[in-house]
Parts: sequence; structure tokens; C-alpha cells
Amino acid sequence: MNIAVIGGHSCSKDMARIAEEIGKAIAQLGATLISGGLTGVMEASCKGAKSAGGKTIGILPGHDKAEANPYVDIPIVTGLGYMRNNLVVKNADIIIAIDGKEGTLSEIAFALQMKKPVLGIDSWNIPGVIKVKDAPSVIDWIKKRRK
Amino acid sequence: MNIAVIGGHSCSKDMARIAEEIGKAIAQLGATLISGGLTGVMEASCKGAKSAGGKTIGILPGHDKAEANPYVDIPIVTGLGYMRNNLVVKNADIIIAIDGKEGTLSEIAFALQMKKPVLGIDSWNIPGVIKVKDAPSVIDWIKKRRK
Amino acid sequence: MNIAVIGGHSCSKDMARIAEEIGKAIAQLGATLISGGLTGVMEASCKGAKSAGGKTIGILPGHDKAEANPYVDIPIVTGLGYMRNNLVVKNADIIIAIDGKEGTLSEIAFALQMKKPVLGIDSWNIPGVIKVKDAPSVIDWIKKRRK
Amino acid sequence: MNIAVIGGHSCSKDMARIAEEIGKAIAQLGATLISGGLTGVMEASCKGAKSAGGKTIGILPGHDKAEANPYVDIPIVTGLGYMRNNLVVKNADIIIAIDGKEGTLSEIAFALQMKKPVLGIDSWNIPGVIKVKDAPSVIDWIKKRRK
Repeated sequence: MNIAVIGGHSCSKDMARIAEEIGKAIAQLGATLISGGLTGVMEASCKGAKSAGGKTIGILPGHDKAEANPYVDIPIVTGLGYMRNNLVVKNADIIIAIDGKEGTLSEIAFALQMKKPVLGIDSWNIPGVIKVKDAPSVIDWIKKRRK
Repeated sequence: MNIAVIGGHSCSKDMARIAEEIGKAIAQLGATLISGGLTGVMEASCKGAKSAGGKTIGILPGHDKAEANPYVDIPIVTGLGYMRNNLVVKNADIIIAIDGKEGTLSEIAFALQMKKPVLGIDSWNIPGVIKVKDAPSVIDWIKKRRK
Repeated sequence: MNIAVIGGHSCSKDMARIAEEIGKAIAQLGATLISGGLTGVMEASCKGAKSAGGKTIGILPGHDKAEANPYVDIPIVTGLGYMRNNLVVKNADIIIAIDGKEGTLSEIAFALQMKKPVLGIDSWNIPGVIKVKDAPSVIDWIKKRRK
Repeated sequence: MNIAVIGGHSCSKDMARIAEEIGKAIAQLGATLISGGLTGVMEASCKGAKSAGGKTIGILPGHDKAEANPYVDIPIVTGLGYMRNNLVVKNADIIIAIDGKEGTLSEIAFALQMKKPVLGIDSWNIPGVIKVKDAPSVIDWIKKRRK
């Protein structure tokens, strides 16, 4: 199972802590973490996943894999700019949105269009997004779904 | 000037009427109408533009230009699927959203990310979208902006 | 009918003259000229098409339509970099390669893969490419095909 | 280091054997094998890499990761069709072409354009491609380069 964590290039310490906690839980569930591979929420979630020995894929907007944050195991360069947002979502079974701006909104839109579940923490208030309040709630939701 | 009209593949008669009116006004302003080239809001706006002798470009998701509605002058096939939504917006100076579902939301998100003005009629309620109530208000807004 | 002219960003005066002659003939045949929209062979062919009142579409690699040469009527920005080479070919019924380097080779490869006719003047020597010696031969070939 | 193996969807037994041998050697060198993730040369090389405990990434043209051959560890879906050929090459440091048709030619073209080394076994005869006769020669070339 691939789980995407989406969110902004920059984020508050609180959001980073939540992203890290969720990344860790994704690894503990044995899932692979997909993200846009950059900073902010993306980096924090990758850091969390690696702290628990997980696997992380970063689908990058540019041509240089050195753009990936240090916690990305498998950087995929695309040169697609923000069109790569579509690929982040296309490669995930579940999408977790944490905070985020317009880029995150485009990912939520694509995910809903693909009929994939989107969980949102302090993120865009869009019909179809399942609002969750914290990392443990995300994990509970995923565990229930897997049963 | 290129103006994009975005909205759903299918729409109500009311929305089609508004889209047609806006397409006509875009042509009368001497602007080119950009759209995703398919049915619904896209087709109605192209029909309006052509009724006033305007020019219409349809940026299609698939490989076959026969998918374009009959009011598209210049069909551009992409094979990009919904990633082509990004190209619709990238090729426009102003974006007008009429109604629409998740595909339209992805276009609004990309447009806001590109710092382009987005006018919305009965569309997504997203911060940054300029709400307008009808076709004449759209035209007024564009005319004021051009001064 | 859309006819693509592909070739390098820079070219000799001889090649530019041939490209211009072919662009002119494409316009006289009533076809639309598709190209990558930049300099060299692309610009020369667009110039030729416009000299005969033709229509020219330029599918650009970047985000800025100002990159298009001055003879492009309809610039389409993509932000796809060289991946846009695929779109140039996808939007053409016939492809004419004049000189050109690796970028042109990628376009020839995609065109052959799509089973589209590729005519080559002083271009890559690839099985499947129909070698022609000058602009009049290109025109003859297209006219015969249309009958 | 990422090494791409490119070649046709279908291939002879001889070519499959060479592809498998090269895949195995890539794994033994500690490099990651990148490919288009499908059948033929792609599958044979992935099989070889897995037989030596290597890591394989498959960048797929479609939307369904089930299209990947069984030896792909990390399938990346793109929905880009043959445009994904560009991504295969973009993610590699060295490209090895084995046999192959027009799709392979497009990858060789993009690789040469990106100034990346391309080794060819019974593949396209294009200036810039380094001709090698068998798998051991490929390995020798890569080992010398790394020194």
C-alpha cells in the first residue's frame, strides 16, 4: 500500500510534528510513503517514516534529484513542475492532506476525481475530504479500512 | 488576451446559458477562448464565442481531436488526461469558473497557484476566487481590468 | 490538416530557406503549420507560412508565450520541456523533418511510433523516414497523398 | 547510481538473455535498475536484477501499477503514455539500449539530448551511442567509468 502525505513547502512546527508522527505511523503500518519530495510537510513526514525504518518515494517537480529532502529513499525527477502533483496522487491508495496551500488543493482535487480517500488535518475544507483531528485518528481510520 | 472558461462536462441548462453568454462576450472583447474542449460548460462557452465570430482553442485530454466539441477551432490533443487541466490554465490570462466538479477545482487550484485571476459563477467557494453572479458582471470585471 | 515542421533551434541559411519554402507551401495547401514554436527551422517555416497567409501553431516547451517566434499565431505553453516534442507530433497528420539534432530525432521516433508519415530533408537517416531532396518534392508528396 | 535498461516490449530469447545478464550485473554493481516496467527487455533486465538482490523501478505509461512486470519493486504510474519515456531517461545516470524499436529510439534521443552516456547492444545505430557487443562489455565500461 502507498500512502501519500501532501501539504505545503513550509509549515508550522505543530504541523511538522503531526506530519512526522503520521509518517512514522505509515512506516509502522508497512506502507510506503509517497510525497512531492520537497521541504515542509513533505520532509517532516519522510523524516517520520525513516525514523521507523519505512520506505519513502519523492516525486519531484524538477530535473535534479538533489532537490529531494534527505529522507527520500527513492527520488523520481519529472520536470513536470506542478503537474507532478497529479503523479503524487496517482501513485497513492490513500491521501493525507496536512495544512497546505493551492498546490495541496490541486492534489486534493485530483484525488477526489480519482475517487481515492482523502483525509485532511487542518487542511482544505472541501466536500469529500474526511476531516481528522490528529495523527492517531489518521492511523485509526487506516487500520479500520484495512480490516 | 486568452480567457479560459472552465466547468463540468455536463451542466444544467441555466449554467449552459450563462457559459454561452460569457463565451459570446469573450469573443466580443476580442479575446481568445481557451477551454478543455469537451462538452457541458466547455461546449456552451465555445458555442457562444463562435456565435460572435470569436476564436476558440480546446486543450483535450486524449489523443483524438474528434473528441473536441464542434465549436472548437483549434483542438490541441495532449494524451495527458486530467493533467491537461494545468495546460488550460497555463494558457489563460483570466480564468472563469462556471459550476464544475473536482476537475474544475484542480484548475482553480492551479490558477490561484499561478497568481492568475479566477472569477467564479456558482462554482467552488475557495479563498481567492472572485465571486460573480452572472455573465454581465464577468464582462464588467474584465473591462475594468483592461482599462 | 495539420503539418508539423520539425528541426533544430539553429540552422544554416540553406536549411532556413528550405524551411521557409515548405512553410509557404503548407499554407498554400490550406494546411495548418504545427511546430515547436522557437527559432531556427521552426521560425523559418512559420515565416514562410505567414508570408502566404497561413495559420501557425507553436507548442512551446516553457511557460512563457513570449518565447514563441514572431510568426506563431497560436502559441501554446506547456512547461513540459522536451516532453512537448511528443505533443508537436501528436497534433500533426504529416511530419516534415529538416536537419535537426537529438530533439528532432525524438520527434521522428514518436512520429514513427504513431505510424505517421515522416518526410526528411537532410535529416536523420532512420528506417521509415521518407527521404526527400527539396521543398517541391515535399509538396508533390503531400499533393499525391491527398488525392 | 541509477542505470536504465531500455528496449522493446517483446524481444528474442537471445536479447532477453543479454538483458537478464545486464540486469544482474547492475544489481551486483549496487546500482538501481530503472526501466519502463513492462515486458520484453524491460522484464528480462528486472528479472536479472532481482536474481542478484537488486532494486528495480518501473516507470509505467498507464494508470495501473498491475501493468508492471513481476520483477518491478517500485512501480510508478504516470498516465503519460509514451511521454514517460522521457522520465525513464531523466531518472538514469547511464542508459543501456538493447535492441528496441521507435520507443527505444525516442529514449536514446532524449538521453543524448541530456548528454547522458548511452550504450547500445544490437540497438539503433545513432551517432553518440557507444556500441557494445555483450553484457560483460557493458559491465567493463561501467566499472571503468566509476574509477
